[in-house]
Amino acid sequence: MAAEAVAVAGTTATFRRVYETLKAELLRDSSFDFNEDAVQWLDAMLDYNVLGGKLNRGLAVVESYKLLKAGSEPSEDEVFLACILGWGIEWLQAYFLILDDIMDNSQTRRGKPCWYTLSKVGLIAINDGLVLRSQISRIFKRYFHGKTYYVDLLDLFNEVEFKTTSGELLDQITTNEGKKDLSKYTTDNYRRIVEYKTAYYSFYLPVACALLLSGWNLDDYVQTKEILVEMGVYFQIQDDFLDCFGDPEVMGKIGTDIEDFKCSWLFVQALVRVNERQKDILFENYGKSDPACIEKVKALYKELNLEGVFSQYEKETYEKLTSDIDAQPNEAVQAVLKSFLNKIYRRRK
Amino acid sequence: MAAEAVAVAGTTATFRRVYETLKAELLRDSSFDFNEDAVQWLDAMLDYNVLGGKLNRGLAVVESYKLLKAGSEPSEDEVFLACILGWGIEWLQAYFLILDDIMDNSQTRRGKPCWYTLSKVGLIAINDGLVLRSQISRIFKRYFHGKTYYVDLLDLFNEVEFKTTSGELLDQITTNEGKKDLSKYTTDNYRRIVEYKTAYYSFYLPVACALLLSGWNLDDYVQTKEILVEMGVYFQIQDDFLDCFGDPEVMGKIGTDIEDFKCSWLFVQALVRVNERQKDILFENYGKSDPACIEKVKALYKELNLEGVFSQYEKETYEKLTSDIDAQPNEAVQAVLKSFLNKIYRRRK
Repeated sequence: MAAEAVAVAGTTATFRRVYETLKAELLRDSSFDFNEDAVQWLDAMLDYNVLGGKLNRGLAVVESYKLLKAGSEPSEDEVFLACILGWGIEWLQAYFLILDDIMDNSQTRRGKPCWYTLSKVGLIAINDGLVLRSQISRIFKRYFHGKTYYVDLLDLFNEVEFKTTSGELLDQITTNEGKKDLSKYTTDNYRRIVEYKTAYYSFYLPVACALLLSGWNLDDYVQTKEILVEMGVYFQIQDDFLDCFGDPEVMGKIGTDIEDFKCSWLFVQALVRVNERQKDILFENYGKSDPACIEKVKALYKELNLEGVFSQYEKETYEKLTSDIDAQPNEAVQAVLKSFLNKIYRRRK
Repeated sequence: MAAEAVAVAGTTATFRRVYETLKAELLRDSSFDFNEDAVQWLDAMLDYNVLGGKLNRGLAVVESYKLLKAGSEPSEDEVFLACILGWGIEWLQAYFLILDDIMDNSQTRRGKPCWYTLSKVGLIAINDGLVLRSQISRIFKRYFHGKTYYVDLLDLFNEVEFKTTSGELLDQITTNEGKKDLSKYTTDNYRRIVEYKTAYYSFYLPVACALLLSGWNLDDYVQTKEILVEMGVYFQIQDDFLDCFGDPEVMGKIGTDIEDFKCSWLFVQALVRVNERQKDILFENYGKSDPACIEKVKALYKELNLEGVFSQYEKETYEKLTSDIDAQPNEAVQAVLKSFLNKIYRRRK
């Protein structure tokens, strides 16, 4: 392995160990008298829902924190706290996903049946989601109560939760209305949904955690926040593009946005470019699982050269983000932002 | 109206006005770019779910706060802040109820169809619940950020949410197991569920909010907390008793705990008193909607003199609570606790 790969593997192993510590503490929480059945349930529920993902968001806290230290090696205790913040995000993600899957009637997640589809679980999964959320506060109180940034940390998670759930609300309403009237799928609505529902918790939150842990004031990093949100939007647009134009072999999955009536970037871009004839084709065939309908939509996307539109968007976004990053006064922050951008630029999965 | 009734009506009117203020602020939140559809949705969702209850928990914050001031009249601003904390609890309650109703497949709530049963809503109700939760943080940040007790307020709500969701977890698991093996319905499990799921947020939380607003340290009121939790348990036991033995005319509803397989206080008390013959009757007939089965369970409860057992419990609890309250060093706190106890002692609905 190259040196960097060794370092990443080391970080991942450390990060995984911290999960076991946190889980053990939650299962024997002195302020709550769980019975044995409940302990077993929680143990299984945590492993099933918090683990199994790529841990990108959580690991990003640790990596960003190390970059912010700019050369000086963080202590073991500091890395431990960064891991805990990272797990806070993974817990948050698990909470959102459990509930999203129920709302969307999804069947699989991370290669396994969704938690709520298990016969022993069912709608208890809703409360499991709430338990995950409240465990974040529990973990943070144990490790960060008394730290100068404790209240900012609580505010940060509350703000991000507010943004994410409000974004999900926009998404649900837009999709509900969109099924009756596809013209509700506007570029404005698309932007709002993606920014609130995904970008804040996936891109801003990991860096904000690292900034807090470094003792920095989030109010001084408003531009950093804007850059990260913009990257989050770019990431989601890539996702939407790859869903249709990506290589299923590379991605490990086959896209279903067209048949699922999704408010996808491709759809909203098509909508601003179609003539009347093309619009009829789009509206007649979108949201149907018949392969012939899906093919017609895809053919239209090609006719409208959405691949070219995406390439142009990607190029301009990369240039804009790079110049915004270079304008950041702090070099360590620049390094963090560049690391994020390099991970996603021209990704194929 | 008697003077006290006039005061209560005045408090209720003030309290209701504060709701309109809070709602208006949430609908035009400057940090979130809601579109018109979303504003309309939120408006309707808040009115449907946050209003319509008796507002007991919310009003209890205002009443407790006034009692803690012990003679000196609180200013308008102080009452306003007490109302906001009260609404925080009502929002929390709405969040729990929306999600509980989905989990329990309930059909009506507060005399209306449950929110999720409306055809335009469905499982979007899950996210609406999360939105309500995140709005509490939003409201508190606006009004309490910078106050000395701000972090304690966040910790308090987080702790109570943790207790309540963990209690709901215990309830769900116990009921799941109980349907297969009724001996899981033990007095220990009953106590745990009731204490965590109901007592903390219904009894402790309103008083804790009033204490914080008065500038007092919650760590100095551990016994007050224990007394309130005990009252909360007593309140739930009354609920369970009235479900079977109350007068439906007075209550305004007909109990369904027996047919619903509930882990009720009456059931767990019966279970520790039955002989083998009676146990067979109980297990054969519990959790069935056939009126003949329900009658057999009720007849058994009478045979076991559970009415007498309840009276004895009520008497002893009242005496114990009264003496614990009298032992409280602070007279204003005593007044608050007595006010709570007097409201529930020997209630018939």
